[in-house]
Amino acid sequence: MAKVVTIEQRILKRNSDLAEENRKFFDSHGVFAVTLASSPGSGKTSLLEKSLPLLRDEVSVGVIEGDVQTDRDARRIESLGVPVVQVVTNGTCHLDAQMVQGALAHLDVTNVELLFIENVGNLVCPASYDLGEHLRIVLSSTTEGEDKPLKYPAMFRKSHALVLNKMDLLPHLVYDLQEAEALAMKVNTNLETFETSCSTRAGIPEFCRWLIAKMNETSAA
Amino acid sequence: MAKVVTIEQRILKRNSDLAEENRKFFDSHGVFAVTLASSPGSGKTSLLEKSLPLLRDEVSVGVIEGDVQTDRDARRIESLGVPVVQVVTNGTCHLDAQMVQGALAHLDVTNVELLFIENVGNLVCPASYDLGEHLRIVLSSTTEGEDKPLKYPAMFRKSHALVLNKMDLLPHLVYDLQEAEALAMKVNTNLETFETSCSTRAGIPEFCRWLIAKMNETSAA
Repeated sequence: MAKVVTIEQRILKRNSDLAEENRKFFDSHGVFAVTLASSPGSGKTSLLEKSLPLLRDEVSVGVIEGDVQTDRDARRIESLGVPVVQVVTNGTCHLDAQMVQGALAHLDVTNVELLFIENVGNLVCPASYDLGEHLRIVLSSTTEGEDKPLKYPAMFRKSHALVLNKMDLLPHLVYDLQEAEALAMKVNTNLETFETSCSTRAGIPEFCRWLIAKMNETSAA
Repeated sequence: MAKVVTIEQRILKRNSDLAEENRKFFDSHGVFAVTLASSPGSGKTSLLEKSLPLLRDEVSVGVIEGDVQTDRDARRIESLGVPVVQVVTNGTCHLDAQMVQGALAHLDVTNVELLFIENVGNLVCPASYDLGEHLRIVLSSTTEGEDKPLKYPAMFRKSHALVLNKMDLLPHLVYDLQEAEALAMKVNTNLETFETSCSTRAGIPEFCRWLIAKMNETSAA
């Protein structure tokens, strides 16, 4: 198995070199790049659908959509009139820096200040692949239970913010919000936490304001 | 990249050899092995918690729990008095046949007729690894939306049954049950479909009856 480990390391090393190239590209083009990761069906695309209309009042936005199959998510974003590129990974369980690089070739970033990169729905593998982003956001929906940070710690440890989504369903669930937040803090004390609902739009304005502030912080630095 | 592909193929070939060994072991010990796969938080452990009490009136049961981290799921099963072995994959995104083999060494199968193997919560990677099971069940919860079979087709294509879970939340969701079932059929026309709720226990008896029937079919064959 030693050979396999070596090749894995080589893949990850190559990925991190390409991620560095992406980061330089973003910086030199004034693009603030934000990745979204979660289980399938936690609401990554829905969060974008609700946030993009607010965000684009203040900044120009763009989206790269990563999916194992179909361009369904890209079509949802496109219908908002937001520039979007779909990456179909064709069975691969995560985006990597090279796929993002390939997508960037199809996106006119001269008009994008804030770029979202939505990863494949998977709480495990995407945690190992730096994409060159400035900010990593992980979503977890209330219906998934409180313990996901403990069971999939790498993703929560590497993220800057946690969006607890589907808050509108709380009255119908056995779900302890305080416990959920405490378990997340146990894994990563620096996690900024947002409570959102894409049905009622609760928490979306706060999330968008925080994103813009982060973006301004970074460009001022 | 050719070398990487070769090594991946070697890993999958070795896995399928070990899966064949597992299958022979199950058959020679009169064990019917059933795997459960889904996104994180779709309700795999909850489905077991509700099904095991019904199933063990008729057959002896055992469970192998696969998780990236923690023994939380094994403890939930243990509290029912059901024999369980926890496999912690330590970052790996799926169970493989060797991990199952390792777990079997810690389980007294002389008293297990029906063995559940709960995979890591992940709709992508587990689809590539045969574990030697007789039956593959995929869960999808109503809160994840209707389109998961299209977006993660391999898992749905390789499964024998689809459990649509969290049916109790339907009144609070924008979710088209007929569309969900139609999209699943599009990917795999042979999927046996169950509509369940682990809160109300709806659909659980039907699911258990089907499992027992499948088990009897296989042992009669």
